[in-house]
Amino acid sequence: MIVQKYGGSSVSTPGKIKKVASRIRDRVKEGEKLVVVVSAMGETTDKLIDLAREVTPDPHNREMDMLLATGEQTSAALLSMALNEMDIPAIAFNAFQLEMITTASHRNARIKDLNLTRLFRELEIHEVVVVTGFQGITEDGYLTTLGRGGSDTSAVAIATEAGKKCEIYSDVAGVYAADPRLVPNARKLKYITCDEMLELAALGAKVLHSRAVEIAKKYNVSIYCASTFSDEEGTFVVNNLPEWMEQPVVTGVTTHPDQTKVTISNLPNDSELISRLFVAMADREINIDMISTVNDNGHSYLTFTFVSGDSDMVRETVNETLGETEGWEVSRNDEVEKVSVVGVGMQSASGVAGRFFSALSKNGIKLLGTTTSEIKISVLVHKSDSLKAVSALAREFNLLEQD
Amino acid sequence: MIVQKYGGSSVSTPGKIKKVASRIRDRVKEGEKLVVVVSAMGETTDKLIDLAREVTPDPHNREMDMLLATGEQTSAALLSMALNEMDIPAIAFNAFQLEMITTASHRNARIKDLNLTRLFRELEIHEVVVVTGFQGITEDGYLTTLGRGGSDTSAVAIATEAGKKCEIYSDVAGVYAADPRLVPNARKLKYITCDEMLELAALGAKVLHSRAVEIAKKYNVSIYCASTFSDEEGTFVVNNLPEWMEQPVVTGVTTHPDQTKVTISNLPNDSELISRLFVAMADREINIDMISTVNDNGHSYLTFTFVSGDSDMVRETVNETLGETEGWEVSRNDEVEKVSVVGVGMQSASGVAGRFFSALSKNGIKLLGTTTSEIKISVLVHKSDSLKAVSALAREFNLLEQD
Repeated sequence: MIVQKYGGSSVSTPGKIKKVASRIRDRVKEGEKLVVVVSAMGETTDKLIDLAREVTPDPHNREMDMLLATGEQTSAALLSMALNEMDIPAIAFNAFQLEMITTASHRNARIKDLNLTRLFRELEIHEVVVVTGFQGITEDGYLTTLGRGGSDTSAVAIATEAGKKCEIYSDVAGVYAADPRLVPNARKLKYITCDEMLELAALGAKVLHSRAVEIAKKYNVSIYCASTFSDEEGTFVVNNLPEWMEQPVVTGVTTHPDQTKVTISNLPNDSELISRLFVAMADREINIDMISTVNDNGHSYLTFTFVSGDSDMVRETVNETLGETEGWEVSRNDEVEKVSVVGVGMQSASGVAGRFFSALSKNGIKLLGTTTSEIKISVLVHKSDSLKAVSALAREFNLLEQD
Repeated sequence: MIVQKYGGSSVSTPGKIKKVASRIRDRVKEGEKLVVVVSAMGETTDKLIDLAREVTPDPHNREMDMLLATGEQTSAALLSMALNEMDIPAIAFNAFQLEMITTASHRNARIKDLNLTRLFRELEIHEVVVVTGFQGITEDGYLTTLGRGGSDTSAVAIATEAGKKCEIYSDVAGVYAADPRLVPNARKLKYITCDEMLELAALGAKVLHSRAVEIAKKYNVSIYCASTFSDEEGTFVVNNLPEWMEQPVVTGVTTHPDQTKVTISNLPNDSELISRLFVAMADREINIDMISTVNDNGHSYLTFTFVSGDSDMVRETVNETLGETEGWEVSRNDEVEKVSVVGVGMQSASGVAGRFFSALSKNGIKLLGTTTSEIKISVLVHKSDSLKAVSALAREFNLLEQD
């Protein structure tokens, strides 16, 4: 049994829906039973949001979910019609009909429980069951949606109990070792591990939603990401690489633009104060990244980064928390980007850091900060150095298409 | 508790939805709890049918129901948003969430069972529960729709168990004693009985669906039909007129255009043959009307009418059934219309038939056929006489607006 998911751009017109149906038919002819999860057609979800805004600037989340749920219901019904027209026995279901139980956090619900008894019963009668992605129902019977990218999550969740294999089709041909818009000859990966994929979320964001990867990792579902309308080979997202495969040291390089770096100097040497600062940030859901502290002559220096959009909230939080403390000074740099290389192979390879820093220094790139994890090295660079850094690292770690 | 229903033209734009919400708010402020049944916005249902036809010329009925159900889901969610925006506690539900159980005849399902426990529970928390009209769910959990006009049926069905009162709002201000397009000064009725409404379906078709009237009659629900966006008084459709009200002899006059009359002459005097003919018609779901037979010199003459669109099927059925019988001849007249007056008051009034026929003969109208029931007299006239006949009868039976 195979679970497939088709994204919004793959079902954006009746013509594309028919093409998707043909691809499904080919798999049925090969003897497979399929569960097919669909997104809403093209820009439908955005159009529904616009429609709601014409009624009220601040639509009720619960009713919004009821409205948004129509998007996938439409595409699922149409795809099932197209399959039946081709004499492929198919049936479409809303997620609620398959007991996709979620939390009650409307517009951003999480799947809590899944009872696939009904789905399996329908698969005995039909070759294909088409399921609306992105949505679910609370225990109390209210419709919910899973947030942006939620259809990926729906598909992987179903695959956890139905075959452990999930094919995710979109208008992107797979996951690349670097963003092809920055590095045009970036290599398309044949395999990437879930851990790497989560670290490289920025690279895979258009292909696969992070929550789907988290579930795949936890329940050991193998995901295959490929283009809907080409036969080009895609990318497998797996927990462990196949044994025959040599683990590359670095799998991908990515950037996080729009970062802001803040340095607070002359802080008293008081870890309780710093802790209070970060608790206050967390309370406001500000995501703090790349923290480093230095102690010098009884004073502390604190540096951290965050997404530039949060600047105002960060300023407020700092002022409120440190307000009565004396002598501290703050400086801010909005012109920075984070550049990271990620690779499970780093854990067992030596000299990765040496290659990393030497590639950057050879290209005259000034480092404004560094953090590392077991499978990642990140540096902060000036905005104007970012592209040069990515290209240098892509060359150094063989992330380019071989000619 | 009041059940209201708003038709597609009343919720065709976000602006109209907001206006409907204001009207509902006014009722809530008067202290009422409301169940509001909505149709799909404007021409949505037709657009969805067109969309399906782009995928396949012959869409699967079950999937079609899933597709069509999105129409009311959209309008219900938007109306509930508009109400919440006005601080009226409201919640929208799909019919399936309220256990509106139907038969499995997709696209033309009938309500079998209704469990309003959930609805009443929600009405304790909210002032308004908005419900999708037109749709239901089978016992097996497949979405269904109730056929054209089904939202009226949904509303009246809910009213059978919730207050016995149903207000149906549309772009028509009520039920008129004659079609205002034919008789511009036709009187709007304050009251009409369910029986009359069923006989006058053609007059009320734009206002109220016949199945809704059947249910209202059976369960003694009082219906009030009026215009959504005016305060003009509408029409009450009731089982029994209020006692203070003098029952008019004739309540309305209506025409059935596009009728065909067939006469078969020189049939053998064989009632079994005629019976076989009508059974064959019924098997093909051809609706035969105004049957009359005459015996003369051992031969039978048979006349009947039907909707002109069925002509080919009627010809085939006649040929197949009478194929081996000798000597019969058939003639056909496509240029006929049926004109009927309806009135519960006829049952107790005398001289109605006399007034009816004399009104027609005074105006030189030639009768091509006649049938009567307890509350109806119908004649068949030539197309070109139809309007003259309707006007003459409207004058005769006081169906015009009093100046």
